[in-house]
Amino acid sequence: MKKAAKVEIIIVGNEILTGDILDTNTNWLCKLIYGRGGSVTRVTVIPDELEVVADAVRQSVARKIDILFTSGGLGPTSDDLTLEAVALGTNRETVLHEEALELVRQQYDHFFERGIMKQGGLNPARQKMACLPLGGEPLVNPVGTAPGVLLRVDKTTIISVPGVPSELKGIIEQSLQTFLNEVFGDGEAMSRCVGVMCNDESQLEPVLVQIVEKYPEIYTKSLATTLGENPEMNIIMTISGIGEKQPLLDTAFEELCNGLTGLGFPITLK
Amino acid sequence: MKKAAKVEIIIVGNEILTGDILDTNTNWLCKLIYGRGGSVTRVTVIPDELEVVADAVRQSVARKIDILFTSGGLGPTSDDLTLEAVALGTNRETVLHEEALELVRQQYDHFFERGIMKQGGLNPARQKMACLPLGGEPLVNPVGTAPGVLLRVDKTTIISVPGVPSELKGIIEQSLQTFLNEVFGDGEAMSRCVGVMCNDESQLEPVLVQIVEKYPEIYTKSLATTLGENPEMNIIMTISGIGEKQPLLDTAFEELCNGLTGLGFPITLK
Repeated sequence: MKKAAKVEIIIVGNEILTGDILDTNTNWLCKLIYGRGGSVTRVTVIPDELEVVADAVRQSVARKIDILFTSGGLGPTSDDLTLEAVALGTNRETVLHEEALELVRQQYDHFFERGIMKQGGLNPARQKMACLPLGGEPLVNPVGTAPGVLLRVDKTTIISVPGVPSELKGIIEQSLQTFLNEVFGDGEAMSRCVGVMCNDESQLEPVLVQIVEKYPEIYTKSLATTLGENPEMNIIMTISGIGEKQPLLDTAFEELCNGLTGLGFPITLK
Repeated sequence: MKKAAKVEIIIVGNEILTGDILDTNTNWLCKLIYGRGGSVTRVTVIPDELEVVADAVRQSVARKIDILFTSGGLGPTSDDLTLEAVALGTNRETVLHEEALELVRQQYDHFFERGIMKQGGLNPARQKMACLPLGGEPLVNPVGTAPGVLLRVDKTTIISVPGVPSELKGIIEQSLQTFLNEVFGDGEAMSRCVGVMCNDESQLEPVLVQIVEKYPEIYTKSLATTLGENPEMNIIMTISGIGEKQPLLDTAFEELCNGLTGLGFPITLK
């Protein structure tokens, strides 16, 4: 069986760190990766600073992960420096990429023709978005003007996408499916959920610890919420991989349910 | 003038990395810190794995930041191992803390008396929440059962709080104000915002780059959104520090507005 691909995410953006913007890209990406049988092992949020981003990229690549997503910092303004940082962190130059330049030009012309922008064509700020780390391939952005970039470095494929959520999603859904299919194949996450009439994790612990030890491959989690809000607690069991793991999940889930009822708490399958 | 305190955040939780839960604690903390004149320089999201969390703590402390927040992994179940990891990452043991134990006992008794829980008092899983890294001080949790922990290590104060948002907020708002006042004093973030009738960052770039170079202390950001959704773009200028920075912000903001109207785009003060 294929090993679950390891993925890291670097979110670049001062506006996240000041609290101006709530980052939802991480959650969207995590759902996507986990749902396809992969595993997000780290997310790092850092400011738009060349050396900081370059260093984070360097460290992720050194951990030999399969995919590194970077989100943010691909736009035309001078504080958008993610591509330069990816280049610096992987010891290469940025170069003007003709195909990327054509994509940028086409998008500005397209937005000009639709009356969304007052000026088509290129200018220095727009051209900057087509300067890719050497060896990078542009990914069509169906929503905005900055192409995404796919760059293979050692064992890691670095995917750089804009931080505007619609652009990130647009590029991944439209331009990255072939790559994702290559990496994840028919992987998927399977989960089962049970509600137990007990809001006290400390009483469920003996059963949970037994299940976690016996089935380390399965992610078993009691979802704690504010006490007093709901007398019922949900416990979710998830396994990420390919379909053949279903029987293992079923067995473990049955044991969990038996263990919980054995403690005397009513359960509800969800 | 006091230097802006540097803050890092470590979010511990598999449930964030699988996408089951959208992390909102980061945004809440970033707003709090930035609003009080501090600067969040890094956020790291990692799984509930002892060595991974310990290593992240070690690296944050090595960067000599002022405050490290850890969120998550303080509960009674065996996958909650943040305190053990903080201890490991700062080369110390965990010890049963009598005052913390009393807080835990009181909370369970309290929830029992209110009919929210079926059992008061202590058990091994509950006792675990009172095992603090040596030298740590418990912080009263007004909402749940796990106390927060404040631990001073070298130049860094590590604040560990639960991941349930209401508990994180409860501890910080109720039990951490004295500490925050010590660190931040009367610091605050000030901001000004202008809307410009141009959705094309590449055309605004000449003005933005000039402002950013002239006023490096001020964070100037054009907030890009999905193209075509709104013909107007907001540009926000923020400075974090104490009140005496207001005149600098006013001057820079006036220059920004003059620059934008100079390009021929109508503006709206916000």
